[in-house]
Amino acid sequence: MNTSSITGAFASLQNDTFIRACLRQATDHTPIWLMRQAGRYLPEYRATRAKAGSFMGLATNTDYATEVTLQPIDRYPLDAAILFSDILTVPDAMGLGLSFALGEGPKFAHAVRDEAAVAKLAVPDMAKLRYVFDAVTSIRRALKGRVPLIGFSGSPWTLACYMVEGAGSDDYRLVKTLLYSRPDLMHRILQINADAVALYLNTQIEAGAQAVMVFDSWGGVLADAAFHEFSLAYTARVLAQLKKEHDGVRIPSIVFTKGGGLWLSDMGQLDCDVLGLDWTVNLTQARALVGDSKALQGNLDPNVLFASPVQIEAEVVKLLDSFGAPHAGPGTGSTHIFNLGHGISQHTPPDHVASLVTAVHAHSRQMRAQPSSR
Amino acid sequence: MNTSSITGAFASLQNDTFIRACLRQATDHTPIWLMRQAGRYLPEYRATRAKAGSFMGLATNTDYATEVTLQPIDRYPLDAAILFSDILTVPDAMGLGLSFALGEGPKFAHAVRDEAAVAKLAVPDMAKLRYVFDAVTSIRRALKGRVPLIGFSGSPWTLACYMVEGAGSDDYRLVKTLLYSRPDLMHRILQINADAVALYLNTQIEAGAQAVMVFDSWGGVLADAAFHEFSLAYTARVLAQLKKEHDGVRIPSIVFTKGGGLWLSDMGQLDCDVLGLDWTVNLTQARALVGDSKALQGNLDPNVLFASPVQIEAEVVKLLDSFGAPHAGPGTGSTHIFNLGHGISQHTPPDHVASLVTAVHAHSRQMRAQPSSR
Repeated sequence: MNTSSITGAFASLQNDTFIRACLRQATDHTPIWLMRQAGRYLPEYRATRAKAGSFMGLATNTDYATEVTLQPIDRYPLDAAILFSDILTVPDAMGLGLSFALGEGPKFAHAVRDEAAVAKLAVPDMAKLRYVFDAVTSIRRALKGRVPLIGFSGSPWTLACYMVEGAGSDDYRLVKTLLYSRPDLMHRILQINADAVALYLNTQIEAGAQAVMVFDSWGGVLADAAFHEFSLAYTARVLAQLKKEHDGVRIPSIVFTKGGGLWLSDMGQLDCDVLGLDWTVNLTQARALVGDSKALQGNLDPNVLFASPVQIEAEVVKLLDSFGAPHAGPGTGSTHIFNLGHGISQHTPPDHVASLVTAVHAHSRQMRAQPSSR
Repeated sequence: MNTSSITGAFASLQNDTFIRACLRQATDHTPIWLMRQAGRYLPEYRATRAKAGSFMGLATNTDYATEVTLQPIDRYPLDAAILFSDILTVPDAMGLGLSFALGEGPKFAHAVRDEAAVAKLAVPDMAKLRYVFDAVTSIRRALKGRVPLIGFSGSPWTLACYMVEGAGSDDYRLVKTLLYSRPDLMHRILQINADAVALYLNTQIEAGAQAVMVFDSWGGVLADAAFHEFSLAYTARVLAQLKKEHDGVRIPSIVFTKGGGLWLSDMGQLDCDVLGLDWTVNLTQARALVGDSKALQGNLDPNVLFASPVQIEAEVVKLLDSFGAPHAGPGTGSTHIFNLGHGISQHTPPDHVASLVTAVHAHSRQMRAQPSSR
């Protein structure tokens, strides 16, 4: 798909704080965006969602996807936008039949549980995911350079979980049964997923994504050895194929493994720019462990947003201080991108998000004004 | 409750491998027991459960609780028995009204969510938990010294999760809202829970429990700082009050925090004998981190039991080898107690458990016969 002629027309970036922090460059404040920031906690999102009729109706309609992606950007001074889409678009394009029943999570009509089903899998034609790339280009245009746009995908392992289970799971019994009893089939699924995810993210980059993030939402359910063999190795396979720049501009990459804190030093070896952290990780220790090779993104417990604005501010100060002062210059220190440790809850009061963003910007500016304190 | 006259009559212990391993003493094989070993995967359990009518009908009936506790011991050469009960008996005795709806998890009729509800909480009269202590004594008698009996409780934090949420939860929103917005109330709940749990475990010890385990099943959902303040501190408060011996015999204590791998070095400072590990933890690294101050228990992914017996055996060998040779003598090295990293799945084929136990005993004996290999 040739989209370079389209992307050439994009407005230049006005707020590059997020991109600079991803690349471990100096910024005058700590950038913030929130996982699932375009979502059900916003009344304007619920209104668009009602018009669209269904989640996939929303995600597959360019205008709606653009509208909801910009809603949190219009409401809060966030430092990045993230494509509104689902992590399971790729297996859907493989023909597995994604659907979202009301009040339930995602479901696949055709789960992949045996040799025959695995044999049918292939990297899907990206034309089937055109609605995603169209949304990326549309959002990028609509942003008019206000903040950068992050594209994303589920990780090979996380996609495999849903492909084998056919839905969410409490115990990952089916996918782990396949993993332990037929590792050959699991590797085959993961190879295809990795190559599909890399192509998918590269096409998002061509369509206008200015950074990309791999969500390894279920990496943390794996046993230690299995994580290395079945999740991390395939995240690395994605990263090895990713475009590092587009139209002469660096495209930062972020890897987030929920529950992956134990493997942080291994993840520090990944060929990506940023590691996302969930709230169980101590930021001071994480920074010491990863060193200056990566920026760190995270990691406030989303449930902090149910406390009062004063309490939210206190938690923000603690978290920013626990990371400490960022070091300026690429390769000379690490930087912090503020985020939650997981997606924002649908029950979050929208005005508490305003308090959060204000607190992050204010305290992080103050930290830079007083470089001796941390 | 004076039970010492009863416990004096217990038969002497024939297989002390588990107790010795807890105390980091030499054993001729690595002991094994399984969390939730008396459970739905066993047809004989399902038969008793059907007779009892309900889960609590089973847990509150001394004969039934004894019967199901011994079922896995009769079927497999396991090295320990664990009291059949629920982790939520203590808040039930506080008057919160525990029930188990069919096919759902536990529920409390009276959730604790405000100042008034917290003010009503108190350490319950242990007479309300008499059915538990009677079961302990009955099981201990029925075991006739074949293997030791482990007593247990939920941790203060894990009990608090259920007490505030009123049931299981996906996001722990209610309990964390209380934690972040009213930490004073949360500390009050946890103080009461800790003192209640300590009294409960000590009374189990007086009734015949030969080791005790604290299940911090939901410690791993906490943010790093919150884990230390709201979970670990209260586990320590329980341990500080625990009887270290009874009738002149050492009573080992085990602490298991699911998802607690990140905090292993902090947990290494706890005043307990054994740390339980879930499957995400690398045993080699855990042993190096904790040193010789604790025995380690775990940590096979329960889903390995869905693979073939040959594959189960291979995973057992890998896990035993990853811990390495145990060092003999208290204080001179650490020991390993084989277990799953979480409760056994109800879908587990019972004959696969037989393969597991055989493999653990066989390979761990072989490791001791060839001390130079690990």
